[in-house]
Amino acid sequence: MKNSTVERIVNQVFTEKALHDFYCVGDTCKGWERNIVDQPIAVKKILDNGAARISAGKGIGDELNDISLARMIDHTMLKPEATPQEITTLCDEARKYNFASVCINPSYVPLCSKLLFGTQVKVCTVIGFPLGATTTATKRAEADEAINNGAQEVDMVINIGKLKAGDYEYVFNDINQVALAAKRKNAVLKVILETALLTDEEKVKACIISKQAKADFVKTSTGFSKGGATAGDIALMRYVVGSTVGVKASGGVRTLEDAETMIRSGADRIGASASVKIVTGDKSKVEGY
Amino acid sequence: MKNSTVERIVNQVFTEKALHDFYCVGDTCKGWERNIVDQPIAVKKILDNGAARISAGKGIGDELNDISLARMIDHTMLKPEATPQEITTLCDEARKYNFASVCINPSYVPLCSKLLFGTQVKVCTVIGFPLGATTTATKRAEADEAINNGAQEVDMVINIGKLKAGDYEYVFNDINQVALAAKRKNAVLKVILETALLTDEEKVKACIISKQAKADFVKTSTGFSKGGATAGDIALMRYVVGSTVGVKASGGVRTLEDAETMIRSGADRIGASASVKIVTGDKSKVEGY
Repeated sequence: MKNSTVERIVNQVFTEKALHDFYCVGDTCKGWERNIVDQPIAVKKILDNGAARISAGKGIGDELNDISLARMIDHTMLKPEATPQEITTLCDEARKYNFASVCINPSYVPLCSKLLFGTQVKVCTVIGFPLGATTTATKRAEADEAINNGAQEVDMVINIGKLKAGDYEYVFNDINQVALAAKRKNAVLKVILETALLTDEEKVKACIISKQAKADFVKTSTGFSKGGATAGDIALMRYVVGSTVGVKASGGVRTLEDAETMIRSGADRIGASASVKIVTGDKSKVEGY
Repeated sequence: MKNSTVERIVNQVFTEKALHDFYCVGDTCKGWERNIVDQPIAVKKILDNGAARISAGKGIGDELNDISLARMIDHTMLKPEATPQEITTLCDEARKYNFASVCINPSYVPLCSKLLFGTQVKVCTVIGFPLGATTTATKRAEADEAINNGAQEVDMVINIGKLKAGDYEYVFNDINQVALAAKRKNAVLKVILETALLTDEEKVKACIISKQAKADFVKTSTGFSKGGATAGDIALMRYVVGSTVGVKASGGVRTLEDAETMIRSGADRIGASASVKIVTGDKSKVEGY
């Protein structure tokens, strides 16, 4: 993907009056209220994309209910000190609440694949995480190994420094190599932008490049940087990628209210460690990612 | 390395009265004041270990001076948004002040190898960083690639969850595979324990396993977790690994005073992004790693 092409598209996006009309700043997203019911193509794609992601369409077109919400959540534990026992509990919870996936570090993919075999819950892992500054070859090898170990979804971090330096060719190839690893085995690829470190213009560029490089989702945050998902970023990302690419809100999504705000802003996947509290509506404070 | 062996050595260490006499808590390290001059074997090993690490022995046996201090510093920039321009500046500074190395993310190894070719400044990169939760195969492949790309030192993160779960065999093999990659090309291996996440007993275990697995250094922190180096941890690590393995203090070392405290506590390498301020004695506040 040529740098000039990216610049041209970005300019187009930024000159569209609609963007500025719809784009909103802060936690609420006035003027850009969208419900998942407004995105029939996205929902169809998600349903097509294996295993009843939004189970039997329940909750869509009406208020969100626990069943549809759970199927939109990647139940996440990425802290480096997580033990096999904690990961086992995570898998038990994921099975109990029927979450979309468990999202865990690569060294736990074999354990989770074994524990979740035969269930609806997918195994999701992270690549080049959380800095995105490993080489393209390492990201590719890491993704190949993770998928061979049983990962069905991979969430990779872009090379942020190269994006900032305008090396879009590098960023495109970095994503595309992981996309090739994923597509070889029908795995889903989510591309983490780490929005807290990007300008709005960089967010738009990253979305365009990710889509071009065959990402299935763009995702806001690692949960290890300065900030997490905001409604404004979700709305912007949804606007840029359109309805054929998913948008995952992650980082700081800790309550049912947070999750609903993200979904209304255009998210069709939520990454959270507080997933059980989110689906059960437990209001007590939760720490961490 | 068998789990029973690790437990036996840990018990030995913990029953040694000396440990508790010498081990100190908090930022100062009373009763455990040691200067690099007290460690002739360590200094000899460092000198032997290629390229005048402590230049011509200057400053050793006397007060530390800027020249010796600079040769103990890994000039570090690991933030994910670092651009090639910022990395180039880092290399320029490292050459100017004759730091031991630049410590940068793997995708910048080719650039730094090119910029520092023919100088005394080594290229150091990080493996499985900062969570340590990638697979052993990925760490090995990442290290092999980094060294092929010109890295002369690699700082890897242990698998913290597996250590906590008592799977010492895994932790040993994880380190040893990277050690094999390093030794194949005479590269230096530093093992990051992420001390902020470990109990004292786990720190001791991690030191013993690292030494057994042929690490050249043990290192406190990634700079991306809850806390960084403390004098107490440095003293403990030095006590456990003895004088034939290096100890690197990293994370939160931001002033000359910090660096001197770490060295007095037993460190023979410092990881810092504030390296220029440390060697020039600039007292202004520095942010970041």
